[in-house]
Amino acid sequence: MTTATLPKHYTDLCALMRTKGTLGSVAALVGWDQETYMPAGGAQARGEQSALLARLVHQHATDQKVGELIVKCEVDSELNNPESEHGANIREMRRDYDKATKLPSDLVANLAQAQSEAQDVWKSARANNDFESFVPALTKVMDLTKEKASCLKTDEHEELYDALLGEYEPGAKATEIAAVFEPLRDRLSAFIAELRDNGTAPRVDFLSREIPVEKQHAFGQEVTAAFGFDYSKGRLDTTTHPFCSGFGPGDTRMTTRYSLTNFPDAIGSTMHECGHGLYEQGIPKDGPFWGTPMTDSISLGIHESQSRMWENMVGRSKAFWTWALPLANKHFDGAFDDIDVETFTKAMNTATPSFIRVESDESTYNLHVMLRFELERAMLRNELAIKDLPEAWNAKFKDFLGLDVPNDATGCLQDVHWSFGLVGYFPTYSLGNLNAAQMWETINEQIPELNDQIARGEFGALLNWTREHIHQHGRRYTASEVIERATGKPLESDPLMRHLESRVRPAYGL
Amino acid sequence: MTTATLPKHYTDLCALMRTKGTLGSVAALVGWDQETYMPAGGAQARGEQSALLARLVHQHATDQKVGELIVKCEVDSELNNPESEHGANIREMRRDYDKATKLPSDLVANLAQAQSEAQDVWKSARANNDFESFVPALTKVMDLTKEKASCLKTDEHEELYDALLGEYEPGAKATEIAAVFEPLRDRLSAFIAELRDNGTAPRVDFLSREIPVEKQHAFGQEVTAAFGFDYSKGRLDTTTHPFCSGFGPGDTRMTTRYSLTNFPDAIGSTMHECGHGLYEQGIPKDGPFWGTPMTDSISLGIHESQSRMWENMVGRSKAFWTWALPLANKHFDGAFDDIDVETFTKAMNTATPSFIRVESDESTYNLHVMLRFELERAMLRNELAIKDLPEAWNAKFKDFLGLDVPNDATGCLQDVHWSFGLVGYFPTYSLGNLNAAQMWETINEQIPELNDQIARGEFGALLNWTREHIHQHGRRYTASEVIERATGKPLESDPLMRHLESRVRPAYGL
Repeated sequence: MTTATLPKHYTDLCALMRTKGTLGSVAALVGWDQETYMPAGGAQARGEQSALLARLVHQHATDQKVGELIVKCEVDSELNNPESEHGANIREMRRDYDKATKLPSDLVANLAQAQSEAQDVWKSARANNDFESFVPALTKVMDLTKEKASCLKTDEHEELYDALLGEYEPGAKATEIAAVFEPLRDRLSAFIAELRDNGTAPRVDFLSREIPVEKQHAFGQEVTAAFGFDYSKGRLDTTTHPFCSGFGPGDTRMTTRYSLTNFPDAIGSTMHECGHGLYEQGIPKDGPFWGTPMTDSISLGIHESQSRMWENMVGRSKAFWTWALPLANKHFDGAFDDIDVETFTKAMNTATPSFIRVESDESTYNLHVMLRFELERAMLRNELAIKDLPEAWNAKFKDFLGLDVPNDATGCLQDVHWSFGLVGYFPTYSLGNLNAAQMWETINEQIPELNDQIARGEFGALLNWTREHIHQHGRRYTASEVIERATGKPLESDPLMRHLESRVRPAYGL
Repeated sequence: MTTATLPKHYTDLCALMRTKGTLGSVAALVGWDQETYMPAGGAQARGEQSALLARLVHQHATDQKVGELIVKCEVDSELNNPESEHGANIREMRRDYDKATKLPSDLVANLAQAQSEAQDVWKSARANNDFESFVPALTKVMDLTKEKASCLKTDEHEELYDALLGEYEPGAKATEIAAVFEPLRDRLSAFIAELRDNGTAPRVDFLSREIPVEKQHAFGQEVTAAFGFDYSKGRLDTTTHPFCSGFGPGDTRMTTRYSLTNFPDAIGSTMHECGHGLYEQGIPKDGPFWGTPMTDSISLGIHESQSRMWENMVGRSKAFWTWALPLANKHFDGAFDDIDVETFTKAMNTATPSFIRVESDESTYNLHVMLRFELERAMLRNELAIKDLPEAWNAKFKDFLGLDVPNDATGCLQDVHWSFGLVGYFPTYSLGNLNAAQMWETINEQIPELNDQIARGEFGALLNWTREHIHQHGRRYTASEVIERATGKPLESDPLMRHLESRVRPAYGL
């Protein structure tokens, strides 16, 4: 693509976006360094650097010139064809600009202040299992978050929740999500109960065998390189909480974590972040449009679909371990030589209700998410008072997962998200699973030999499918559009249910 | 120190400097990452990030508001007392502001362009041993560098060279440097000749014993931690070319390099960078004045004095190896168990003429520097045509070091500096040695038990001396002032000569 024939108001706009993108990529590096290599003593100055960069990015995002150029592009009918890439780019720049300029700076400052305070309060509330002490701080954050949602609303009939959802999943509607979540919730609950009542949990003891960390790292690098992650344009480092950061053209950084006696957790995290990394590497960031929405990912739900697909659909399959178990044994001096692929795969597909979301398995995870979705939506609709959150949490937990929550620290105080005003964020985790499962069915139809390829350690056809149907488009289509274009139908819950049943039932002898 | 009683024009100015400093620290991180962890594919985008940050720093440095506030501070007689820290701070902010605003942006752009081109030409000229092909590019850079010097000149009688020198060594004069360099040059040349004619070179064979890199790294970390480098506020990583970057409050990053069969090079580089690191950690960067000249280092010559002191005065002494050799043997599984401290120390104090500056020893190094100083000063005075550089280089090389330069690649093409317009930079290397030697004599007078302390691995008194006399002052005093205040006399060449003779003569049995 060349900019030679494009009008100046558009190329000027793209140049401003490029500067904003470059500042954003510096901010990403600064954040990555904070988690990887920064000495502890640098924390305070790092806070100042990050705040300054955030301010500069915001200045560039809200620059009046940007607004003026967007208007010029919008009225340029030749350029602004909604069917074209440039038209989509302009549409998305408008969305970003409106979002960035809609919030009064007082509200932004008050919310930042309230979030910062609420996080401190949350930390000690969780440590002391004292929800009551968290109520005033959470109330303040939630009130300001509602105010923020009111500012972000695009039409007056829009549900407040949707305005917040749009920050993470542009175009998504709570009613549509609920329509997919509710049947899934009921079927998953029933499924979990059936496993508990009629299934036999597979053997998992060998998964906690000691594997030296550096050997786990080498194995993870070999697996992700085979997936197609380009290490000449990226890295894999170690952090407390794994993440992936797409810095910009030619630089994508993944992190993972290792435990001596929990090798599946490490390789799972590594494959998960690799999914994010492959998406970032597949977005066409090189060239004159870097920094514009065309070079950005669609939504968290689509991003998460890529990570979940490699972590779960690939990474827990028998085909994958047919290839990967001998490889692991090579790296780990035969640590699993006495375990056959069948037994190993079963151990990777357990489904056991537990209290903590981030420690839960592929099946029960979604129930944790849906519980939060229902509760935060109720809070935003003023149907649930914050003081009543623990009671509501515990009731739903019993209902969905069949467990009695022993205390709030293990219950509604476990996640940092709400203290941060992150409402509308949780559902994107399960949207990721739903998107991934629906794509996975289509991919297997279109690449019938995929299982055999995976069993030989060949992932090229799979990666190419995601490149073609997802990665290359940047933000050209919305998440719903991309799913419908790729799979031929809107998002449904059946594929995820079918996927989980096909993996977990055999593991439990059903 | 508090800002409560300070006038608003000063605190506002300091706040602007803080923003500039914070941007500078981000630029430093971006540069560090480029050398340490950035994947190769990130190079192009990194160039764009660095250029953007440089532009932002420059914008902040040349902001008209900064100029206006400096004027207000200058006429505030209560604040602007030249004897006070704040007065010094204002003086130095004026120096920086004038320097940053004096260069026309056209000249800056042309010079950047010419430097970039000249570097490419230099690379292939050096590879092909073809000086002639380098002449046009070097001529262009030198012409623009002279133009730059004319813009930077503070009075019309000033030597052009001094204007460039001031970039690296504020306040220094070429005539003063020449007055110290010339006697040193002659004595060093004679010393080298005497060693060659009458001395017996010490045994060095054991220095190339194979030492695993990770063991060298652990040893280097233990040595520098003992020197006083605070690893909770810094790091040591590996790069092709060692460097140290003071990112700002609480974050100082050193790098070194390892060779399996050249352990002295690695530990020398590590101690060298640690000297820079200790200086950076000793400058009071915490608090409200971060970003102002008070929180910056004085000059390259002073910075280099700190690195050379730890690398050479400490790191090549018998006292040091009395402590460090057993420590090395512990780390290296007794690799030097058969070598006594006397023999080891002698091997660390050789003086042998060679062609390449960066590979030369402590004594001959200064002759390489003085040769460059004389030649670049002559070029700037139009006393030496660029086409005649090889001939002049080779003649001086024979004269100073007694060797016939075999070709230009090994001669005047060996350094990147001139292609970069770095004129006035070289002398700071030897100024570092001179400063260090003069301080070292004073320190040993004031801490008579220093040798015994070092032999026990105790470096606290030494570090405290540098903290008190050098580090804590930031840019309050000029380099000459700081040396004179610390040692009681202006810079002389005798201490360096005495230092070298005291170390090298015994090694050569003289």
